[in-house]
Amino acid sequence: MPLVGPLKIKAQLRCGSDFAMGPGKADLLEAIDREGSISAAGRALGMSYRRAWLLVDEMNRTWKRPLVETVAGGGKDRGAHVTETGRQVLAAYRDLEARLVESAGGEALARLQRLLLDEPRPSQKGA
Amino acid sequence: MPLVGPLKIKAQLRCGSDFAMGPGKADLLEAIDREGSISAAGRALGMSYRRAWLLVDEMNRTWKRPLVETVAGGGKDRGAHVTETGRQVLAAYRDLEARLVESAGGEALARLQRLLLDEPRPSQKGA
Repeated sequence: MPLVGPLKIKAQLRCGSDFAMGPGKADLLEAIDREGSISAAGRALGMSYRRAWLLVDEMNRTWKRPLVETVAGGGKDRGAHVTETGRQVLAAYRDLEARLVESAGGEALARLQRLLLDEPRPSQKGA
Repeated sequence: MPLVGPLKIKAQLRCGSDFAMGPGKADLLEAIDREGSISAAGRALGMSYRRAWLLVDEMNRTWKRPLVETVAGGGKDRGAHVTETGRQVLAAYRDLEARLVESAGGEALARLQRLLLDEPRPSQKGA
């Protein structure tokens, strides 16, 4: 997830009540591209196979064409690859994140940083 | 949380491992300003008193000066108000959000919207 100093920015694309793209899905697409299977990509990100599969399923249901295709047969270790649409979506999402990061580094953030502590004070008892 | 069409943008400010400001804390500050107490603000947002109090405590420990001051005595229904620093932080955070929203509505988002479905397809069985 992009960071600008102390600022964390999260961009999520919705499709109805589902999420079509976000930081976790973008990282997973990149890992599938690198690792060549959903299970290996999940492992690389410390994600269960079930979780990785659910994220892929959500991505494949929320865009006009699937973002990931799996090779038939071979169970959970079968190969998977990012489709051309998947590459387009990933590139546009990373562009959007970069644009958000660029625009965040302005005067409003500078005002916030002047008032922000480097480390929190200890919690008070009470209430 | 700001929305630009299907895009949801979340800006969070960290202080060490704590969060100093984000969408929930900004809404809570506004509600305290309107309602005049932490408990009434929590109720207005459908948040437990404990949760509201913890968010206020976190805000009051992560900025150079407290963002919320409570009136002594009266238990959980005692009054609270947003400090001058609280107003400055809130205004700068809302400016930052507005800037992110403004910058998001560009060409990368248009590319994503062209590929995005309006509603997800039904889930497939299997995996």
